[in-house]
Amino acid sequence: MLQSQLFTKTKREAPKDEEAINARLLIRAGFIDKLMAGVYTFLPLGWKVLNRIEDIVREEMDKAGGQEIFMPALHSKENWETTGRWKSFDALFKLKSRSSADFALGPTHEEIIYPLLKHYISSYKDLPVYLYQIQTKFRDEPRVKSGLLRGREFRMKDLYSFHTDDKDRDKYYDVMRKAYHRIFQRIGIEVIDADASGGTFSELSLEFQVISEAGEATIFVCEQCKFGLNEEIITASPVQCPKCGGKTKKEKGIEVGNIFPLKEKFAQDFNLTFKDKNGKDKFVSVGCYGLGTSRLMGTIVEVCHDAQGIIWPEAVAPYDIHLLNISEKQKATSDKIYNSLQKAGVEVLYDDRQDISAGEKFAEADLIGIPYRLVISEKTGNKIEIKKRNENKTKLFTEKELIKLLRNTNKIRKYEK
Amino acid sequence: MLQSQLFTKTKREAPKDEEAINARLLIRAGFIDKLMAGVYTFLPLGWKVLNRIEDIVREEMDKAGGQEIFMPALHSKENWETTGRWKSFDALFKLKSRSSADFALGPTHEEIIYPLLKHYISSYKDLPVYLYQIQTKFRDEPRVKSGLLRGREFRMKDLYSFHTDDKDRDKYYDVMRKAYHRIFQRIGIEVIDADASGGTFSELSLEFQVISEAGEATIFVCEQCKFGLNEEIITASPVQCPKCGGKTKKEKGIEVGNIFPLKEKFAQDFNLTFKDKNGKDKFVSVGCYGLGTSRLMGTIVEVCHDAQGIIWPEAVAPYDIHLLNISEKQKATSDKIYNSLQKAGVEVLYDDRQDISAGEKFAEADLIGIPYRLVISEKTGNKIEIKKRNENKTKLFTEKELIKLLRNTNKIRKYEK
Repeated sequence: MLQSQLFTKTKREAPKDEEAINARLLIRAGFIDKLMAGVYTFLPLGWKVLNRIEDIVREEMDKAGGQEIFMPALHSKENWETTGRWKSFDALFKLKSRSSADFALGPTHEEIIYPLLKHYISSYKDLPVYLYQIQTKFRDEPRVKSGLLRGREFRMKDLYSFHTDDKDRDKYYDVMRKAYHRIFQRIGIEVIDADASGGTFSELSLEFQVISEAGEATIFVCEQCKFGLNEEIITASPVQCPKCGGKTKKEKGIEVGNIFPLKEKFAQDFNLTFKDKNGKDKFVSVGCYGLGTSRLMGTIVEVCHDAQGIIWPEAVAPYDIHLLNISEKQKATSDKIYNSLQKAGVEVLYDDRQDISAGEKFAEADLIGIPYRLVISEKTGNKIEIKKRNENKTKLFTEKELIKLLRNTNKIRKYEK
Repeated sequence: MLQSQLFTKTKREAPKDEEAINARLLIRAGFIDKLMAGVYTFLPLGWKVLNRIEDIVREEMDKAGGQEIFMPALHSKENWETTGRWKSFDALFKLKSRSSADFALGPTHEEIIYPLLKHYISSYKDLPVYLYQIQTKFRDEPRVKSGLLRGREFRMKDLYSFHTDDKDRDKYYDVMRKAYHRIFQRIGIEVIDADASGGTFSELSLEFQVISEAGEATIFVCEQCKFGLNEEIITASPVQCPKCGGKTKKEKGIEVGNIFPLKEKFAQDFNLTFKDKNGKDKFVSVGCYGLGTSRLMGTIVEVCHDAQGIIWPEAVAPYDIHLLNISEKQKATSDKIYNSLQKAGVEVLYDDRQDISAGEKFAEADLIGIPYRLVISEKTGNKIEIKKRNENKTKLFTEKELIKLLRNTNKIRKYEK
């Protein structure tokens, strides 16, 4: 992508109406645009990052046997009345159609997926089933000051697993826990497993918490085994780790995902049953697995930045390489390198703009945060200077060395792995 | 995909509450599930088809220089009041938050993209810009009886192009018209260009109409050059073709896309200006290009089906091949072929189910409508029977021949092209 053609430009100043680091950096660098509190447009760079995150999530859900579907955002009042949540779910957006039918905007999809399953499940032979979607969700949040961490409109992956009994569900619960770990590992951020309350519909839940001052949760993290406990289930003081008995430390955490077994409530509400091997009707056993993909994007920025800007992990960066031309005389060489890199399948943002000083280009590159910066200038001669966003040292490569590297690995970013 | 693992099953009967052919077939075959009138869940097969359609649309928009973004569904009342459409847009869904702020649910995005552009456009050097999104939209439709053809919640691609003057916009208008033609050509459905009224905000518009009895539009199609005229702009009788003077025929059409230049109204409302070369403030010139992706999916079913079921065009089919094992004795051979095809990169739905008769499997395959059906049975011996969904004749291949074919072409479906 030629930066001269990129729709967005970076801003010198952070927006005055944003306090959260993620919102300030993402808006300054041109990843998102604020429409109103808790509601953002994803701009070309931001949409690319969100897609990379969601593609990783999708791959891991598919590997775990998940089948992707896409449920509606408009829900019927009837279904929400069946569960009693039309009244009890505070953050539910409600609206009326011209025909005066009432609808809800989906903040979660139990009210849709249980009735859906009734159309397809009748026998134990139809189970287990794992269904997921990656979708825009809506919550009428009273506090929306944290950028992508808490929005009125946000992106989420939710998977629902349906089983003949709790034992089978618990086995899959562990499969999902591992899938979540792979997601965070691939993205390259550290996540703490934390026991938490299950709320109204579950005995307990497991939260995936990223330690950050921007977090709203208070968790006690074991200094030995790194297991966490959400403060909401703390009963004694001092808090000991339930896994290893170790000492814990109080931290702030951002909950990027949570998984929990659902009680029988919804299955009873919608009478979602199946015939077991003996022909007896039984309620299905269900697990629910949420992951906020836009929140995860905001969280990454909260934990991966410095004073100059964002430092995207390689797996979710909008581009692999940020190529800067800072010398008119070297423009032809830069163009050539850009073409070679593109041919090698590397995704490159090429700062080909004229009338912008080298200093400004460096500052913008640091703000945008692409993992590798390539510079071609009079100083580097026929060589290309490579620098990682999170390191200070630079290396010099000839074009031939660079291309050879790319031929070997296809992606330059793999070269130090 | 093993059909024994597929979440959905086909249904013997069409749903009683659906009249439209697309809804009846898509529900029976397990592509969509109805939540309520005009609101559907996309099931695994249906979500795959919609993704294939949207990927083609995305590729063509990217080729035309479009930059993908993702705007919110929740809109502020303020922006809709600025254009006067809070009151005048009949199909606008409105809702109130707990804080008693009013929101609209996006049925179109002029109210969002014009203010967004104001954050990034100031000089003629920033233009032209082409931005698009593929997204869920909401309209409070009074009539929602046509399945995916007219929904309260539907998927749409909308691109907005911003230019320094109308001449540049008109040039791009033609680029888009050609991009639309490539989309329909790649999908393999015949589409008529039709002049239509531009509504309130444009002088005229160009509609892309698919001839079908299920259509709501009446168009006069030239018998010679195939150009169309929407009945709404007809002034004389008999209707002559404005392009070639030929005779026209009255037809029903489904409008799958429309493109139109926007008058200055929105630019004035939001004061979206730029400085021209002489430093003078001018309003931007804007074009708008819509394409209903879920409606297109419904339209394909309306025009591509027979008494037995759907006949998906190859480009958007959920799988390339439907492999049926109809003989227990040949199960091992079928499994082997399935693995070979998968290794060759072919997407296969493999009907590996036991206790289902051959007749039922054939009927289900016809209903689902995957382009190529492969059968391995005792009758075919070591050979594999290949049949196209829209042809009656079958061919016999050895596994070796099949694999050789696949090695050469990667996709068996290309072999007759």
